[in-house]
Amino acid sequence: MSTAGQVITCKAAVAWEPGKPVSIEDVEVAPPKAHEVRIKIIASGVCHTDWEFLYEGGIGVKPRPFPLVLGHEGAGEVESVGPEVTGFSPGDKVIPLFLPQCGECDRCRSPKTNQCRKNWENAQNGVLADGTSRISHRGQQVYQFLGVGSFSQYTVVSDTSLSKIRPDAPLEKVCLLGCGVSTGYGAAINTAKVERDSVCAVFGLGAVGLAAVMGCKANEAKRIIAIDINPVKFEKARLLGATDCVNPSLQPEKTIQEIVVEMTDGGVDYALECVGSTSIMTSALESTIDAWGVCVIAGWTETQAISIEVEQMLLGRTLKGTYFGGWKSVESMPMLVDKYMNHQLNLDDFITHNLPLDQINTAFDLLRNGQSIRTVISLW
Amino acid sequence: MSTAGQVITCKAAVAWEPGKPVSIEDVEVAPPKAHEVRIKIIASGVCHTDWEFLYEGGIGVKPRPFPLVLGHEGAGEVESVGPEVTGFSPGDKVIPLFLPQCGECDRCRSPKTNQCRKNWENAQNGVLADGTSRISHRGQQVYQFLGVGSFSQYTVVSDTSLSKIRPDAPLEKVCLLGCGVSTGYGAAINTAKVERDSVCAVFGLGAVGLAAVMGCKANEAKRIIAIDINPVKFEKARLLGATDCVNPSLQPEKTIQEIVVEMTDGGVDYALECVGSTSIMTSALESTIDAWGVCVIAGWTETQAISIEVEQMLLGRTLKGTYFGGWKSVESMPMLVDKYMNHQLNLDDFITHNLPLDQINTAFDLLRNGQSIRTVISLW
Repeated sequence: MSTAGQVITCKAAVAWEPGKPVSIEDVEVAPPKAHEVRIKIIASGVCHTDWEFLYEGGIGVKPRPFPLVLGHEGAGEVESVGPEVTGFSPGDKVIPLFLPQCGECDRCRSPKTNQCRKNWENAQNGVLADGTSRISHRGQQVYQFLGVGSFSQYTVVSDTSLSKIRPDAPLEKVCLLGCGVSTGYGAAINTAKVERDSVCAVFGLGAVGLAAVMGCKANEAKRIIAIDINPVKFEKARLLGATDCVNPSLQPEKTIQEIVVEMTDGGVDYALECVGSTSIMTSALESTIDAWGVCVIAGWTETQAISIEVEQMLLGRTLKGTYFGGWKSVESMPMLVDKYMNHQLNLDDFITHNLPLDQINTAFDLLRNGQSIRTVISLW
Repeated sequence: MSTAGQVITCKAAVAWEPGKPVSIEDVEVAPPKAHEVRIKIIASGVCHTDWEFLYEGGIGVKPRPFPLVLGHEGAGEVESVGPEVTGFSPGDKVIPLFLPQCGECDRCRSPKTNQCRKNWENAQNGVLADGTSRISHRGQQVYQFLGVGSFSQYTVVSDTSLSKIRPDAPLEKVCLLGCGVSTGYGAAINTAKVERDSVCAVFGLGAVGLAAVMGCKANEAKRIIAIDINPVKFEKARLLGATDCVNPSLQPEKTIQEIVVEMTDGGVDYALECVGSTSIMTSALESTIDAWGVCVIAGWTETQAISIEVEQMLLGRTLKGTYFGGWKSVESMPMLVDKYMNHQLNLDDFITHNLPLDQINTAFDLLRNGQSIRTVISLW
């Protein structure tokens, strides 16, 4: 029996308040309104950003409204579409996106950016275009993190924040393209534009950093220095292309930038900051060669400032930011899925754990303790 | 009678100690050593950097050794050449350079930078390759600012810090290519790579800023917003291509970036900081459009740090530094001189005053009081 047009009751992980574990609840998911699509979420990666907005809102990132369904790295199937939706049909495999691509605005028409602003403020506030969420719990609105909310068996997103992918794509793998892997991979390829035979350094070896290593490798960097204080990460880093692994905590008498500059006789061509720490951003910048080094900030922090010695810039360094790896969101997902299916892009090795929805707090613990790269949550 | 091989006694403006006016002295200029060239300086621009190292060493810039002959924006004629010099002959018209181009190092061979490091530390310390200056006063060594020291009727420079120019070039004009005009013009053209029909903002309308306006115009920017708190500068800015002139002190209720973002409905494509102020660097960065704005720091400060809200970078801004406008120094001078001779690059309108060497302290006063753009000092 079709559920189209009906409210669906299903399981979701609800974050009732900041700093507390989430709990599995029966929520009601309303039908999609105009230009909206309701999705049955099959799988969702657990990203550090989910953890951060739950446990550190107001510290490194701005507080978001609660109660909240987190999750923004999901994949699923279209259950039903709202009025005026033309590009999607029930059964389509899709990746919901925290970054829209309306295709019509100045930004979507510019080759220089992926920063479409369609429904931007609303998504940041956990609601859709009309200012409300489609998820509720006993009549109380539950916000959808970044306009997605993929830790729910069903969710509703804008049709400009959704990408249709090929029907043979394994959703429990390609969900990782919805955030971390695309961000790090694109930071190297699209934003740094790593050149062949260049020397690169990647700071922080979570999913974003490991994907940055993979991006440097894809662009044929000759040396890729992978840096983390958790040496457990080094095996994956090497697997994905790192030529050198550095644990700066073993050389406490030196700054990280001193270590990297010494290793490379002057500094790297490209540095990718994948932590979200302002002090590591400074280290990353100063690890690049003064004359032409490019430092890309891929780590996320919303509320902090980086201090840069002006002299470090004046001889020719470049500092850049990246968001979702510079990918234009909707149009890039099918291409990245193809790369995965053609074995040109690794997703499998990012997945260290698979857990059902009711163990999602365990996934947060694994993430926080540095024991996982990505846990994929099965919603069913 | 040839002076080659002889010590030459001539006039120079000697800065005996920081914070005090310079005084005109008879100095002795030794013959050039290997790979050095002695130049009869005909004219020299007075740059803000000369003033700054005299009066603000230790504040915005690092202290330099004294006594010191300032001046690094000169032009002259070769008087004699030292051993192993092959590219220069007596009588050649030349521009001495504070930035070398040896032509042989990795940096000179890279298209990405102009940052040759030949004799770099020595030049910063006011001496030539052997660690000494060629200028002395009654036996006391007098340092040559940046390895040049163009406020002397004769000086000696390295043959990798010297560019030969066409014989019909008027030295009292093209001397300006030795620093300020090249720096600002190149910041727009080489470093920002201003695109046709783009929107630009230039912060600070000294020689560097006005040259940046000229560079934005040369690259066919459609709108060039010139910003200074001294409205006297606006006439020149308009002459050189500014479409809008803004005096932010008339709108004290708004930040400069608020004014610029409002004027441009979201921010400029390119911002050029030509002041050397860390707070204005922040304003310049935040004046650019968040999705693809490029901010170039052309103003000079050596000892200060800029604070950047990370969030201002993450959506796609780029911050870059530039040094001597990105020009590879030796090879670019003849091309820039040609542009001047062909009326494609304006130098005449930068020259507001001409003074003899013995009035150089007046030139510093005019500069400090915002009354001059460039004073050209005639050495003879």
